[in-house]
Amino acid sequence: MNSPQLLRTAAELKAAVAEALAAKSAAGAGAGEEPLSLGLVPTMGALHQGHRSMMDAARAENDVVVATVFINPLQFNDPEDLRRYPRTLEADVELLGAAGVDLVFAPDEDEVYPEGAPLVRVSSGELGARYEGASRPGHFDGVLTVVAKLLHYASPAAASGTPVRYRAYFGQKDAQQLVLIRRMVADLNFDTEVRAVPVVRAPDGLAESSRNGFLDPVHRRAAAVLPRALFSLRDRVSAGEPPDLAAAVALVKAQPLVELDYFDIVDPQTLQPLRPTDGPLEKPALALLAAQVGSVRLIDNLPLENPDTA
Amino acid sequence: MNSPQLLRTAAELKAAVAEALAAKSAAGAGAGEEPLSLGLVPTMGALHQGHRSMMDAARAENDVVVATVFINPLQFNDPEDLRRYPRTLEADVELLGAAGVDLVFAPDEDEVYPEGAPLVRVSSGELGARYEGASRPGHFDGVLTVVAKLLHYASPAAASGTPVRYRAYFGQKDAQQLVLIRRMVADLNFDTEVRAVPVVRAPDGLAESSRNGFLDPVHRRAAAVLPRALFSLRDRVSAGEPPDLAAAVALVKAQPLVELDYFDIVDPQTLQPLRPTDGPLEKPALALLAAQVGSVRLIDNLPLENPDTA
Repeated sequence: MNSPQLLRTAAELKAAVAEALAAKSAAGAGAGEEPLSLGLVPTMGALHQGHRSMMDAARAENDVVVATVFINPLQFNDPEDLRRYPRTLEADVELLGAAGVDLVFAPDEDEVYPEGAPLVRVSSGELGARYEGASRPGHFDGVLTVVAKLLHYASPAAASGTPVRYRAYFGQKDAQQLVLIRRMVADLNFDTEVRAVPVVRAPDGLAESSRNGFLDPVHRRAAAVLPRALFSLRDRVSAGEPPDLAAAVALVKAQPLVELDYFDIVDPQTLQPLRPTDGPLEKPALALLAAQVGSVRLIDNLPLENPDTA
Repeated sequence: MNSPQLLRTAAELKAAVAEALAAKSAAGAGAGEEPLSLGLVPTMGALHQGHRSMMDAARAENDVVVATVFINPLQFNDPEDLRRYPRTLEADVELLGAAGVDLVFAPDEDEVYPEGAPLVRVSSGELGARYEGASRPGHFDGVLTVVAKLLHYASPAAASGTPVRYRAYFGQKDAQQLVLIRRMVADLNFDTEVRAVPVVRAPDGLAESSRNGFLDPVHRRAAAVLPRALFSLRDRVSAGEPPDLAAAVALVKAQPLVELDYFDIVDPQTLQPLRPTDGPLEKPALALLAAQVGSVRLIDNLPLENPDTA
């Protein structure tokens, strides 16, 4: 395992991307039918197995892999949440090295926002105001703004002497973020392919999250009701039965340490609620939830697919 | 003079940009100290001498020049203004050919907005709500969104097999738009250099504008008070005297066919009002105005520079 190269400024990153691509090109990559390729995996650090699976996906598909580690203040509506967000750069770089990542971009706040909060931002519109956006005003505008910046910073084409295919990886865990990033890339015509990486779950079913470390054992056991409720929905739908959202909600509400924020069945592309009446689901859907567990806010989601209509 | 190549889709443009750059590269461009370069000049058509000077600037500095002609519905707050905006593509292509432009991208609305109004947009924030933004709600969000799209569509780096310097040209005439585009490029880290092209004026001083054609001779004569008021301010400041904004405003108000919307002296970078007290200007400033002349809304601006502090 090589240690990945750690870059602190956009100029360093640009030079390192160009150099890494040139080295791959010199070694013969991109000479065949597949063009040279670069994978970008944006993270806020505090890396876990969910991130590892994103790095593995990027590594499998690209000649050069860049991970970014930047805790983006613009997407935190709660200063306390920002303050206590875990910062573990040394361990992160170790995990990234083990995953074979080539370059790690870990800029400080002044590098990304040299003049403070940016005047011009990306706006997530009506889709960014629902679900997570309703609980966290401004969150998705902050996410899209920093992702636009990161896509430009790491852009291989701008740095390289040869055509490069550019892919960016995001976790399905943040389902609404993923939908919004897909919309941004389409609506603003970024020359980037968005790749979704499935949720990684611990043995108790809980989706991997940098926030899970804040759960004490009692709350951790309580939180496991969230995936159980999602699985119960999925199992019914997979059996061709109508989804019973009320029963799944009741399952969560029976757990007194878990306070449900939202739990809905939505269209996976638009996040429009699919309000099934009594019948089975007529198209692929997504079950989407958020809950407060003690002091920790958790989100999760699971695809629902009726085998009779798939 | 060659006729420029007319492209109707983003895919056609991307291929044509790659081909044009490859041809220049094969002919030896970019082999010396100057990298290969591409200049983008976004327009809404109805081209005049102001646009011509933008094309000339782009032609002088770049190996390949792309002009875009797209009347962007997203930046029109007034449907009537959009409906009657002049559409003169044939004459535009002729002017672009005479200016030596290589590629003309003239997509239709479905190509740029295949799903209708985009969900995710660029937001111009507080700076986009002043002056023109106060009179035209949503205007600058629409401008920035389409410019972000155009910068990505024409991006030479994404299409080319060699590093390319990317410049985009905007008229100083639209001073607030220029400031906002500079902010967007900086805040979202587009890999593009923004170049400003000075205002071009008719012999009567009126700034060239696609809307001037709507002025009848009487209103045209009346409109000439706008540059006269700007020149009066500039002449005082150039002589080291304090700018007399009240006198300049009074000059415009003495013309009954002209209804002043705003007239201010601002910082050229931030558009923050510089409210000079009685003394001379202490740093370079911009005089900025808008007025309704009959049914036509005109904007204009002029740099003010006190030679004693320059």
